[in-house]
Amino acid sequence: MDAVTTLIEYLKFPSVSTDSNYSEGMQGARNYISGQLEVLGFSVENIKTNLHPILLAQRHGDPEWPHVVLYGHYDVQPADPFERWSSAPFDPEVRDGRIYARGAADNKGPTIVHMTALQRVLKKHPNLPLNITYVIEGEEEIGSPSMPKFFDDYAERLSQADYMLVSDTGSPSNKQIVITTALRGLIDVEIKVTGAKVDLHSGIHGGAVYNPLQAISEICASLHNTDGTVNIPGFYDGIAPLEDWERSQLDRYPESLESYKELLGVSSFAPCGNLTPLEAVRFGPTLEFNGMGGGYQGEGSKTVIPSEAFAKITCRLVDGQDPTTIQEMVIATIKERCPKQVELTVRRGAVAPAYLVIPPDRSNTPKKQPLALANAFRCVATAITNNFEKEPIYLREGGSIPVIADFKQRAGLDAIMVGLFTPIDNLHAPDESFDLELMNKAIATFEEVFISISNS
Amino acid sequence: MDAVTTLIEYLKFPSVSTDSNYSEGMQGARNYISGQLEVLGFSVENIKTNLHPILLAQRHGDPEWPHVVLYGHYDVQPADPFERWSSAPFDPEVRDGRIYARGAADNKGPTIVHMTALQRVLKKHPNLPLNITYVIEGEEEIGSPSMPKFFDDYAERLSQADYMLVSDTGSPSNKQIVITTALRGLIDVEIKVTGAKVDLHSGIHGGAVYNPLQAISEICASLHNTDGTVNIPGFYDGIAPLEDWERSQLDRYPESLESYKELLGVSSFAPCGNLTPLEAVRFGPTLEFNGMGGGYQGEGSKTVIPSEAFAKITCRLVDGQDPTTIQEMVIATIKERCPKQVELTVRRGAVAPAYLVIPPDRSNTPKKQPLALANAFRCVATAITNNFEKEPIYLREGGSIPVIADFKQRAGLDAIMVGLFTPIDNLHAPDESFDLELMNKAIATFEEVFISISNS
Repeated sequence: MDAVTTLIEYLKFPSVSTDSNYSEGMQGARNYISGQLEVLGFSVENIKTNLHPILLAQRHGDPEWPHVVLYGHYDVQPADPFERWSSAPFDPEVRDGRIYARGAADNKGPTIVHMTALQRVLKKHPNLPLNITYVIEGEEEIGSPSMPKFFDDYAERLSQADYMLVSDTGSPSNKQIVITTALRGLIDVEIKVTGAKVDLHSGIHGGAVYNPLQAISEICASLHNTDGTVNIPGFYDGIAPLEDWERSQLDRYPESLESYKELLGVSSFAPCGNLTPLEAVRFGPTLEFNGMGGGYQGEGSKTVIPSEAFAKITCRLVDGQDPTTIQEMVIATIKERCPKQVELTVRRGAVAPAYLVIPPDRSNTPKKQPLALANAFRCVATAITNNFEKEPIYLREGGSIPVIADFKQRAGLDAIMVGLFTPIDNLHAPDESFDLELMNKAIATFEEVFISISNS
Repeated sequence: MDAVTTLIEYLKFPSVSTDSNYSEGMQGARNYISGQLEVLGFSVENIKTNLHPILLAQRHGDPEWPHVVLYGHYDVQPADPFERWSSAPFDPEVRDGRIYARGAADNKGPTIVHMTALQRVLKKHPNLPLNITYVIEGEEEIGSPSMPKFFDDYAERLSQADYMLVSDTGSPSNKQIVITTALRGLIDVEIKVTGAKVDLHSGIHGGAVYNPLQAISEICASLHNTDGTVNIPGFYDGIAPLEDWERSQLDRYPESLESYKELLGVSSFAPCGNLTPLEAVRFGPTLEFNGMGGGYQGEGSKTVIPSEAFAKITCRLVDGQDPTTIQEMVIATIKERCPKQVELTVRRGAVAPAYLVIPPDRSNTPKKQPLALANAFRCVATAITNNFEKEPIYLREGGSIPVIADFKQRAGLDAIMVGLFTPIDNLHAPDESFDLELMNKAIATFEEVFISISNS
């Protein structure tokens, strides 16, 4: 099968990890990718977890040569609202050089890029000395809750590797590739406030009862300052200032405020404290409301005072912020600000630290780096420059891949992250898609990478 | 059929007026009640509207004798959340002396009370000289949008009547009946704020975009003061102070702050400005959030910045507040407070004025009242005292029946409102029910009322 057909088959499995109704889709995606790895000559282990198994696959080359870990995930975000998709999210469709489906870019497309490149290299060089360990998990979109246990059991084995190659980050376009040098961390908190024991008639009881929707609004409205910064005491403590080389790399980024505004479809940006909007999405921490609800959700009006209301809150964190500390800080602040007339319950969701790596030759105060990593950084940069005809930009990214920091902490592995999705790919939103021109160039890039890191 | 069986059959029709999926249930309820009226000897007209027809039924007695209008509605509130009902909302079930179903108390039970009383009276006195006009509409729960046109066409005919009898209000228990002297008005406003053109990945774009959920929270949080009053300039203008007799009637009301708290299942009340909670729900205006939502509503977390968020807002109004003025005031305030980074759209829902009637012998500064009305007030009070063994309490009610003020304005008809539902009936909420002991006493009361007003 060619790469596109392989990807289409993979995308047909609705592997939504957060919703137990999709367990069949999860299993399908897992079996499919496991099969692909076996064809490539990997020995594949299906590591059981409390929820979705992790695929751990091994290719033994020459023990004297580099050992690379390839990381990805077979789970995807929920596809709702379904009615806003132009074609069904799990019935992939190619239109105008793009493939549309949930997971096309995040992360199934990039996974197929790596595998196709590897397949082509191994066809030409069956005895490639490169050692490869694949880790493909099924809980990335829900904060990778099973990975700590996985690290308990396999960190020692993983630590024999030299570094990781990951493609689960973004680039500005199919012409300019970014090597991602940082990922934001994440904390997840859901709050529920409860007033009366049942929904009440707003005429008969309106005026005496604290409306849970009013309470949740007051809590949520209190969490930002008017300059856009997060209004939680201590939230910014410990964050280091940006290095100059990072700002100058951002200057190379082909996005203006005007083009970014147009991309998002907004007339103006939120206030961003002392950062520009382009800096804020990469270098600053955030507190966002991902979902909120309560009371009547249907057509027309219904005159109730709802019994309860909820808000789903996540923060993106940067290097220097400890996720557990921040999560408790957010919860303590919410508790303090919650009106006493309603009852507050809190669900503590996942936490993940931010991750930061300094590429070789970039920083004025370079950290000592292992030779293999420094070398691989150079191989990857060269392959990108050869295939995309432009040097990569080294840039922090706003998204989170919770396990990348864990791979570093638990197994000592740094990650070279080659961004393969672009801002128009609609990640986590309706009409997610993946660029086929970029896909082909990326396959060629990784073919070159696998050869060059094997030779160095 | 006995009264309970008749009510059960009526309750089986899911007549939800706000949701077009229930048009069959609406038609069923309408046909059923129309058939009942025809059996009673009424000539029934099915008055077409843009949505749900109005039943106008006439019984001609002796033109020299009183002419009473009986008003009710065959539509009900939506039944969701369905999963919180102990038995299915449209499959009525009798348990422990109560009948459980959506609409049991509001307003199908009281309608069957009137009809059963009338049936019994007419069986004994087929030539009763009383003139009766029934008006049973199907849009009460959505603000009676078709009634203005109905009044345009039929007000002259209605104005030939003397007064109305209505049972769509509450009493504190099945032992103590209230005659309702006022109803709160209502305005309905729905707002939607839109940020980016699609839901965004909160990692990739978080920090640059004004989150619509943050905007809606900030708007909604701004609409109350910390003392519980509504924070909209001019909102309280024109409201007259309470008369002493009203406060002393409330003193007779068998509810303490403690028992009310227990009924609602709250640990404390909202701040109520300078009113007590029991006063606030009857004598004060409110601004309530009936529904709010945006972003991910499912299980677990989804890291999006939603494209839009909404809030459904209603205000209850008291005598002296003009609904259209208040509606525009609320909208103007929201527009002013809406962050400029998001786009605001407003749906203007129904408006309805408050209604107030002063019963004879109650006020120190009595309004001149027509003899028939004053007389009917006394007949009703006596029949209640005879059957419930306690004098009624004259009290304002917090709920709204939008058309009652219209009947007064358009056809000059005041209303004698006999409260037949009680605080444990769960109106507009799961497990709505109607008390069968109260139902039987109320039927006997109205038998006496129909006889005594015919004789006076």
